[in-house]
Amino acid sequence: MDREGNISRDFVKPSYVYLIEKKRDGEEFTDDEIRFITGSILDKTIPDHQLAALAMAIYFQGMSPQEIAVLAEEMMLTGEVLELPRISRPKLDRYATGGVGDKTGLVLIPLAAACGIAVPSMVGEEEGFVISDLDKLRSIPGFQTVIPSEQFVKQLQQIGCVVIEQRQAITPINTILFQLRRETGTVPSIPLLTSSLLSKKFSEGADGLVVDVKWGNGAYVRDVESAKQLGRMVTRVAKSMNRKCVALVTDMNQPLGSCVGTGLEMQEVLRLLRGESDPELDELILRLGMEMVRLAGVAGSTLSAKQMVRKHLTDGMALVKLKEMVEAQGGDTSYIDDPEKFPKAKYVKKLPAAKRGYVHTINSGMLAHGVQILARRRDGSIDHAVGISEVKKIGYQVKQGEALMMIHYNDEINLESALEFLRSSYRLAPKRPIQNDLIVERVA
Amino acid sequence: MDREGNISRDFVKPSYVYLIEKKRDGEEFTDDEIRFITGSILDKTIPDHQLAALAMAIYFQGMSPQEIAVLAEEMMLTGEVLELPRISRPKLDRYATGGVGDKTGLVLIPLAAACGIAVPSMVGEEEGFVISDLDKLRSIPGFQTVIPSEQFVKQLQQIGCVVIEQRQAITPINTILFQLRRETGTVPSIPLLTSSLLSKKFSEGADGLVVDVKWGNGAYVRDVESAKQLGRMVTRVAKSMNRKCVALVTDMNQPLGSCVGTGLEMQEVLRLLRGESDPELDELILRLGMEMVRLAGVAGSTLSAKQMVRKHLTDGMALVKLKEMVEAQGGDTSYIDDPEKFPKAKYVKKLPAAKRGYVHTINSGMLAHGVQILARRRDGSIDHAVGISEVKKIGYQVKQGEALMMIHYNDEINLESALEFLRSSYRLAPKRPIQNDLIVERVA
Repeated sequence: MDREGNISRDFVKPSYVYLIEKKRDGEEFTDDEIRFITGSILDKTIPDHQLAALAMAIYFQGMSPQEIAVLAEEMMLTGEVLELPRISRPKLDRYATGGVGDKTGLVLIPLAAACGIAVPSMVGEEEGFVISDLDKLRSIPGFQTVIPSEQFVKQLQQIGCVVIEQRQAITPINTILFQLRRETGTVPSIPLLTSSLLSKKFSEGADGLVVDVKWGNGAYVRDVESAKQLGRMVTRVAKSMNRKCVALVTDMNQPLGSCVGTGLEMQEVLRLLRGESDPELDELILRLGMEMVRLAGVAGSTLSAKQMVRKHLTDGMALVKLKEMVEAQGGDTSYIDDPEKFPKAKYVKKLPAAKRGYVHTINSGMLAHGVQILARRRDGSIDHAVGISEVKKIGYQVKQGEALMMIHYNDEINLESALEFLRSSYRLAPKRPIQNDLIVERVA
Repeated sequence: MDREGNISRDFVKPSYVYLIEKKRDGEEFTDDEIRFITGSILDKTIPDHQLAALAMAIYFQGMSPQEIAVLAEEMMLTGEVLELPRISRPKLDRYATGGVGDKTGLVLIPLAAACGIAVPSMVGEEEGFVISDLDKLRSIPGFQTVIPSEQFVKQLQQIGCVVIEQRQAITPINTILFQLRRETGTVPSIPLLTSSLLSKKFSEGADGLVVDVKWGNGAYVRDVESAKQLGRMVTRVAKSMNRKCVALVTDMNQPLGSCVGTGLEMQEVLRLLRGESDPELDELILRLGMEMVRLAGVAGSTLSAKQMVRKHLTDGMALVKLKEMVEAQGGDTSYIDDPEKFPKAKYVKKLPAAKRGYVHTINSGMLAHGVQILARRRDGSIDHAVGISEVKKIGYQVKQGEALMMIHYNDEINLESALEFLRSSYRLAPKRPIQNDLIVERVA
């Protein structure tokens, strides 16, 4: 698509240095200037070093909602945008800005489908924090994360949910820009996070979006104020793009649930879908699920939304949807029926507490990095059997020598390196710590 | 020279992203980290886009005097550093951070030589604002700006002044970094300006430096507060490098003197060296000259410094030094004796004031750009005959139709483009404007 057509005829192309200096000095770009920049990223006329300087200037000076909306629109419209007119269900997706041990997405997607929503989920490389939802699904043998477009639409129509890798043709600008941002320390820029996630999610064909904006040491956004800003910006810009959007700002200063690791987390998902309870995960799933159901309009009131979500989480319907999706995408459904089939690691050992005390802080990013090391095979593939389980959470009182977690591993050398990270991620203190609220803010 | 030797043995090389994020978050680099960065620039292991992001992070977060001192040292020591043990005179240079119509350097250099100072001046591409001192000297036929090292030393010894292009071997890191900064809007970064100018000037073999930190619309630094910061940082870091340094913060919101253009400015220099007076230029030359003489220790008191500078500016000694330098560097000295020999432009026309009023502001950057267009020959060379003269300064009261300046030109098409810039650089107002102080601050 020729986007030059959208730039005003009398627009005089500025130099890249001029644009960098303009943003560096805190000025606002015109719509034409944004379109000129996105066009230059797409056709690779803007050199990487100038784009990097511009991204860092944006990191420091920010962007207005209008600038972000035009940026997100351009990112969308310069790529493939799925239109799903044959899908009669409300089309809605969810997104989380990173999260260690966060398996809520894999519960929410089939749960929303069970509630009558169509969830066309394409997962980009920036989603998930260190461990991606795609890798968790790939722990089920045969599961395909790349499928033809026709199947995508058909599966969405028949089952109501699909999770695949983000297609290359979707927001190509985002792909280029995210790679550069990752190498230049500009991932946590609120305007760039906002335009990136909205353009991606709305390109899939979703009409609405529930965003879990995570803050903390296991998320892209470290501080709660920035997360709130991001939540407000995302909902505001989504609305100016005529889409429905709700954001919850949630705590990500400790792993979610009790396991971290692809196969272990998948098994935890199956336990949750069988109705096994985890107070913390339950709360988050319920709240996010309710937001999806309300936004999609399949439940009229907050109460009926709550009832609908609770019902399908416990009546097995969400599990059925997951199984249907796994089957449609070529996965071995016997793993869904019998989680005992998931391969076990050769060794399991406990990480003992060095002293008695309360778990005071957990550096989740460090913890995730430790798990990533455990799973690193020499051929570059991921070992789905390894990870950590029975993770002790903030506020838990341990005795000296008691397990902080169980470590599942197959490789002694990996264990050695991983242990450094796992051990140093825990800080114990003699006093009970103050717990963060799990859900800090709701922005609609 | 292998600089790795200076990095501590137990230094673990960090990733470039880590370093970018560290500076982005406002932290201070260790000496080893600075050395690792400069090493990576020199051997080109740090990719341009990461260096660009780092430069922009430095623009916003700044650097401590310690960081800047290590950076400047490394920039120096990774390149050629001239040692001038055979020169018995005090070795001192001057530097100005841009300036439209600023020909003070070309007066000060022979003037300082006349006062018994050795001035080993190498001029880099970032010096001068649009029009470089080297180009002004090149308006004298035959003048060579590249000479062998032996001649550089010999000329310094015998005459006391030399002005050449900065040698490639001097601060190669600076050359790489400045090119990148120019393309990424990071030239005005105070830490980068400081390390760049100090490393260059001290690589020439100078023991001390007088810096004219210009602020305004014809300088790299636009606001007076940043200029003051730069002045303080330059003197502070120079001292921590065990060199003598004084900075004056001066106004650059209108062209200096009455001409802008290579040949026209060179002729203005000759008039000044013949004792012709220009109140504004006189003040600046006198103050900067006094600082050089005091810093070099060739005059004991402020009074004797003033007397010495005044004397050699009027007794023709500075002119003699310039002539000796021109001769030594292959230039046609008959131009010095008879400025009428400088080629004249085919056409001279006045730029009439559109209305009556006081000259309220002059956009010096725009004005310089206009002159640059006038001088652009089709083969890429510079036309030394063109430029502007009799420039009316801020506060001057013009009648409608009276000349704001005289435009010297050879090419009608260039004139058309230049006129747009020259015309729009002037703003006239009915009330007399408040004049800026020429010298705002002295930092020693």
